Amino acid sequence: MTVTVRAGERSDSASRSGYLNDEEYATVDAWWRAANYLTVGQIYLMANPLLRESLTTQDIKPRLLGHWGTSPGLNLLWAHLNRAIVARDLNAIFVTGPGHGGPAIVANTWLEGTYSEVYPSISRDEAGMAKLFRQFSFPGGIPSHVAPEVPGSIHEGGELGYSLMHAYGAAFDNPDLVVACVVGDGEAETGPLSGSWLSNVFLSPITDGAVLPILHLNGYKIANPTVLSRIPDTDLMSMMHGFGYRPIEVSGDDPARVHHEMAQALDAALDDIAAIQQHARATGDGSRPRWPMIVLRTPKGWTGPREVDGVPVEGTFRAHQVPLAAVRENPAHLGMLEQWMRSYRPEELFGSFGVPDKSLDVLKPSGERRMSANPHTNGGQILRDLVLPDIEEHAAVVPQPGGSQIEAARQAGQWLREVMRANPDRFRLFAPDEANSNRLGAVLEVTDRVFTADIVPGDDHLAPQGRVVEVLSEHLCQGFLEGYLLTGRHGLLTSYEAFIHVVDSMVNQHAKWLKVTNGIPWRRPIASLTYLLSSHVWRQDHNGFSHQDPGFIDHVVNKKAAVVRVYLPPDANTLLSTLDHCLRSRQYLNVIVAGKQAAPNWLTMEQAKLHCRRGLGIWPWASNDAGSEPDVVLACAGDVPTMEVLAATEILRERLPQLKIRVVNVVDLMRLQPDSEHPHGLPDDQFDAIFTRDKPVVFAYHGYPWLIHRLTYRRANHSNLHVRGYKEEGTTTTPFDMVMLNDLDRFHLVIDVIDRVPGLSVSAATLRQEMVDARQRCRDHTRATGEDAPEIRNWKWPS
Amino acid sequence: MTVTVRAGERSDSASRSGYLNDEEYATVDAWWRAANYLTVGQIYLMANPLLRESLTTQDIKPRLLGHWGTSPGLNLLWAHLNRAIVARDLNAIFVTGPGHGGPAIVANTWLEGTYSEVYPSISRDEAGMAKLFRQFSFPGGIPSHVAPEVPGSIHEGGELGYSLMHAYGAAFDNPDLVVACVVGDGEAETGPLSGSWLSNVFLSPITDGAVLPILHLNGYKIANPTVLSRIPDTDLMSMMHGFGYRPIEVSGDDPARVHHEMAQALDAALDDIAAIQQHARATGDGSRPRWPMIVLRTPKGWTGPREVDGVPVEGTFRAHQVPLAAVRENPAHLGMLEQWMRSYRPEELFGSFGVPDKSLDVLKPSGERRMSANPHTNGGQILRDLVLPDIEEHAAVVPQPGGSQIEAARQAGQWLREVMRANPDRFRLFAPDEANSNRLGAVLEVTDRVFTADIVPGDDHLAPQGRVVEVLSEHLCQGFLEGYLLTGRHGLLTSYEAFIHVVDSMVNQHAKWLKVTNGIPWRRPIASLTYLLSSHVWRQDHNGFSHQDPGFIDHVVNKKAAVVRVYLPPDANTLLSTLDHCLRSRQYLNVIVAGKQAAPNWLTMEQAKLHCRRGLGIWPWASNDAGSEPDVVLACAGDVPTMEVLAATEILRERLPQLKIRVVNVVDLMRLQPDSEHPHGLPDDQFDAIFTRDKPVVFAYHGYPWLIHRLTYRRANHSNLHVRGYKEEGTTTTPFDMVMLNDLDRFHLVIDVIDRVPGLSVSAATLRQEMVDARQRCRDHTRATGEDAPEIRNWKWPS
Repeated sequence: MTVTVRAGERSDSASRSGYLNDEEYATVDAWWRAANYLTVGQIYLMANPLLRESLTTQDIKPRLLGHWGTSPGLNLLWAHLNRAIVARDLNAIFVTGPGHGGPAIVANTWLEGTYSEVYPSISRDEAGMAKLFRQFSFPGGIPSHVAPEVPGSIHEGGELGYSLMHAYGAAFDNPDLVVACVVGDGEAETGPLSGSWLSNVFLSPITDGAVLPILHLNGYKIANPTVLSRIPDTDLMSMMHGFGYRPIEVSGDDPARVHHEMAQALDAALDDIAAIQQHARATGDGSRPRWPMIVLRTPKGWTGPREVDGVPVEGTFRAHQVPLAAVRENPAHLGMLEQWMRSYRPEELFGSFGVPDKSLDVLKPSGERRMSANPHTNGGQILRDLVLPDIEEHAAVVPQPGGSQIEAARQAGQWLREVMRANPDRFRLFAPDEANSNRLGAVLEVTDRVFTADIVPGDDHLAPQGRVVEVLSEHLCQGFLEGYLLTGRHGLLTSYEAFIHVVDSMVNQHAKWLKVTNGIPWRRPIASLTYLLSSHVWRQDHNGFSHQDPGFIDHVVNKKAAVVRVYLPPDANTLLSTLDHCLRSRQYLNVIVAGKQAAPNWLTMEQAKLHCRRGLGIWPWASNDAGSEPDVVLACAGDVPTMEVLAATEILRERLPQLKIRVVNVVDLMRLQPDSEHPHGLPDDQFDAIFTRDKPVVFAYHGYPWLIHRLTYRRANHSNLHVRGYKEEGTTTTPFDMVMLNDLDRFHLVIDVIDRVPGLSVSAATLRQEMVDARQRCRDHTRATGEDAPEIRNWKWPS
Repeated sequence: MTVTVRAGERSDSASRSGYLNDEEYATVDAWWRAANYLTVGQIYLMANPLLRESLTTQDIKPRLLGHWGTSPGLNLLWAHLNRAIVARDLNAIFVTGPGHGGPAIVANTWLEGTYSEVYPSISRDEAGMAKLFRQFSFPGGIPSHVAPEVPGSIHEGGELGYSLMHAYGAAFDNPDLVVACVVGDGEAETGPLSGSWLSNVFLSPITDGAVLPILHLNGYKIANPTVLSRIPDTDLMSMMHGFGYRPIEVSGDDPARVHHEMAQALDAALDDIAAIQQHARATGDGSRPRWPMIVLRTPKGWTGPREVDGVPVEGTFRAHQVPLAAVRENPAHLGMLEQWMRSYRPEELFGSFGVPDKSLDVLKPSGERRMSANPHTNGGQILRDLVLPDIEEHAAVVPQPGGSQIEAARQAGQWLREVMRANPDRFRLFAPDEANSNRLGAVLEVTDRVFTADIVPGDDHLAPQGRVVEVLSEHLCQGFLEGYLLTGRHGLLTSYEAFIHVVDSMVNQHAKWLKVTNGIPWRRPIASLTYLLSSHVWRQDHNGFSHQDPGFIDHVVNKKAAVVRVYLPPDANTLLSTLDHCLRSRQYLNVIVAGKQAAPNWLTMEQAKLHCRRGLGIWPWASNDAGSEPDVVLACAGDVPTMEVLAATEILRERLPQLKIRVVNVVDLMRLQPDSEHPHGLPDDQFDAIFTRDKPVVFAYHGYPWLIHRLTYRRANHSNLHVRGYKEEGTTTTPFDMVMLNDLDRFHLVIDVIDRVPGLSVSAATLRQEMVDARQRCRDHTRATGEDAPEIRNWKWPS
């Protein structure tokens, strides 16, 4: 690809023929030049924003940090989308896959006036422009990416791969919205993005909005060409066709030609979208249409320096970041920078006060039609609370602790069905093919799984519209839900505990987004992202070791305390209470781990609500230390550990009746931390009152045991804390064999107590040996029969 | 898709016409039936393996755990591949994407005899068959997936998405190998798999082997149809064509027709591969050919129960796991099971002793040609040590501590260049477009970046052959490297520290693989998977918050201690020594975090080697406590924290000369754990000798501070340990502003010491205030100028 013409150099005649009329052409080109100028200004300048005088070293930032390469393409697209928005009164937002093109998006939002509205000190004039330039990628200023600080953004873009899934998530249940999504050709190499193209299978042309993917091929990444720019063009078109799109190509390095082609392509795509939606909505035919998408090929760093020190820059990987790196040291470079900036003819674009020229206003959509001010990009602004049905009506009946048994997740499913029913426009469930397997199938009584590809007889609750989104991709589930939440809706993600690690890095990025938005007054709080992990480490009977990993909790608690919450409800009613709480919450990542297998109910709904409100507490009915200091605390967090602790308690109370036991259950894991570390942290005096200051604590925990130490190491009694949990031992085996493999079983907990409580009677030594024998007996039974011993399978808490 | 004919029911005439001759047909079909029979047997039976008597409840396992749905397809493919292997003396291995089809692969390995060779107690006769059936998915037996226990497997398949990248990794530098890779249509929905198709851009037809992807569309996942089975067939073909393949379709539910078509398709594909390789190798043309791939459409649970209790099963999602679930309770189901098993005509397949009939031996490749015994699938067996150049020759010159400065990663790059040169057949570097950015560019002096798509003038070190694999996908880098290591080679992955979280879940799975193989005697140790993370949290000047995350270390240390190692070399020579150590190691995940920016050198190579051997140690030249107990220990781990600790030490020694300071540097993070927890753990007495039992320790750590607490909470002096690290505060700013944002800076460390050491002089209070002022002064300077203050930029350890 050779570069022959630049914005500043083209002959005027070029604009005279083509798709756009002269005035349209002039405006679009002017906007583009203005945005490019403002982009370069942000990367380089600390002063002299309008080039009133020749540039000097003092005008240049000491550290040049930013990404020019992708920016002219983003600016081109924004300008053209504005033309379409104004012409069609379009309701559109812009998702910037190449999020490192931050200065480009900032430039456009400033041109539109939005930037000055949310940051009044960055006024839309010369003084504001000077600050705009200076603050970019500057200490105390703004990040170099399309971060939450940028109005109109729902996508930071720092970690590549998630633009298209965010776009689809934003489009769900927003039938009037068009989400323009720029996908960079670097990003397009990632797995998550590659897996996003077929998201159109989950988009209803009737009840959802449209996504317009724009694959921007500028040919290079940091140091390498991109794959999609180097395979045959016919292959690329086949691929996009195969994904179900009608690809429209725009390609070139002559701005004049590209402007005409781009405008035509965009009109064709938007006409297509309108026709598709009109047809579907008129006929009720929700089957998958062939949506348009655009492939745009333009040079990397287009209109920037063509060659620097004898080396080609424009159109190569060298244009990725700062094409002229030595402007402060090298007068020739400084001169080239000035020439480059002047090529955009700033004197035509900004009046004498630095205010964007009135001629640009033709392309400035009004108010909320500006992509930088579209309310969908500040979802909290339009967020409406969920209508939440009373959990009392879905309570599990608990005559006494352990007196009934239920699949907690299935119970939750019944309630979620009512949530779904009561909120048909703003709540979705996302799952990697696991909604039923995770026992939430009841939701399908009021809605379907959305699927717009072929549906055949025998398919189960599959329809072109539906608010259960099932796709075998944790990435898509997470990305869709993020997009859905960021645009002001609510949702829930259910997945296998082990495989939610697939989205660890996405969780990081969303947590960072939430943390930053907490500090941005104009960003309104959005609904929390809630995970229900009900196929957990302890019950992978038929899948084994690869499906056993409780480390997602550890991953999440590394994030800023203000945005993370972790819950381990031990039974059905506590799960319901927790879910109810989480779906009301804002700005958090809520992780709920709860079983899907039939298991005992411990608490009535009234008790459950109180217990959840406290986050942790003594279970008096299980303890025998009433009114006195216990000899030992048996603590538990998680459904399986809770059952094992209670079974151990039963043995201990029966066999060592003089031993005073306190049973403590933890629902809200963050309560274990000091209140200085986490908003939910329990003050030390309360913690000590429950866990004592000096008695042994045997703690049975759902996950990796050291997490409990990490949360409690500042507590007075920490040195007496002994934690059992998953220590990475597992295989395909029975539930009880699994806890035995990890020394979390009732018998081992009894041994742990005996080994830690001083001064026990002789009978304790006998009991200890019995426990060793019981473990062996259970193991032998299991190996012989393939099942857990009847004493385990039929165990019940004594009534 | 309707099912009309089954293996056991077809008319013999069907076999008489078609691609295969009668004998070929009979053998392939017999093998398929035998494997199907053995698959069903494993899922259901505890006894009576040859159905010598009618099945009774006692023959049936109490817990039916396994996946039937994908198995007949896998068996079909194995049978047909065997035909081709025997006919062509093909060197082939089998990667099972749908790894839950474990019983199918086990069945084939038993038929081939390999299973009995590695597990002599599971003999190739009736007694062995009985054990084979019983052990499957049974307590004390084998996992239900294609786990490491299965000979011939390099891919567990429990977490879906990585089959194709493993296959490509296995094919690199194995020019004679054909890697048949079955991709399930569920797995095909994942991001990582979607991003794998274009891996052919990195495969040389000259110096690499071939990958034959077989996309198996059986139509359903656990509960839903698959996307790829429901989009138009023409779209699917377009997609595969777009990915650069020549797709060959095989489709049907009539075994007779499918056998002929499958054989023909496989021959066509293998002929294609041979022709491609022959052409490329004869002409030297390494450009990307159009490789063949196969699309196979057969019913899910093919040849299994067609309908159960009036509900269709074969060809639906209900065939995913155990199609007849109630065989122990329901005599009719038991009868159906027997009928189903007898439909394979076991009496023809297994002689009176249960030994596979001689007629099957025609399809049993000999020795190492068996896919179950191919040495590439037990990589340790063929692993040859790397030739490692002497690190002394690449040592950074260090006249005194801090007396020289270098980019550590660039120095490492020089040494890696020599590693690359000395091992042209068994070492590769993988990077998501970051080899140069991470300063390892020197390797390109002896090899190129592999790229078989279009190469144009101006491309930098790009060639159809090369041993640097750069693709903007951490998933592909990880998956390629795993495949490369598992087949007996060596490699290194370099990536941004924050974004290596993208592969968290893959790391889990690889760690689990290593953990399990440690317990399997016939699996030989493979080379470790080593990460060099040199774009780390503290130096993201131009990228900011989204690029700042040091939590990968936390993620990795959750894995089994025996397989994880974490290193934080503080300078160039320690980095070289660490790399040298890691590339010699086996069966580990090695995580190395080290900077790429210019930074001081502290240790000569001799000192560095000793320090690395110890893993942590006192730096006497920085300490002033010689011969006595210190007043405070200043500990550090990581390059940036080390510099800050030394700068703080300088201030303290100058201003509070009576204060006795011990400086401790930690390279090997696992040394902090007790030796009971990790093989590298330091015994308590040695730990106490270094960190004291009662003196304040101020620990400056590279990552999240609580990790240090989690590793040391059992140590005597833990309550005096005060850790600084990254607390999730960051943005686009200067390096020193970053450490200040997280209170890890030299001034704050001085304050921490003053606040913790009792009985300091009055001058300490003055110094404390000066430190507060210095922080403010630095902050102000940075905000005003965009740069760190000169006193920071020019700081040097006093000589």
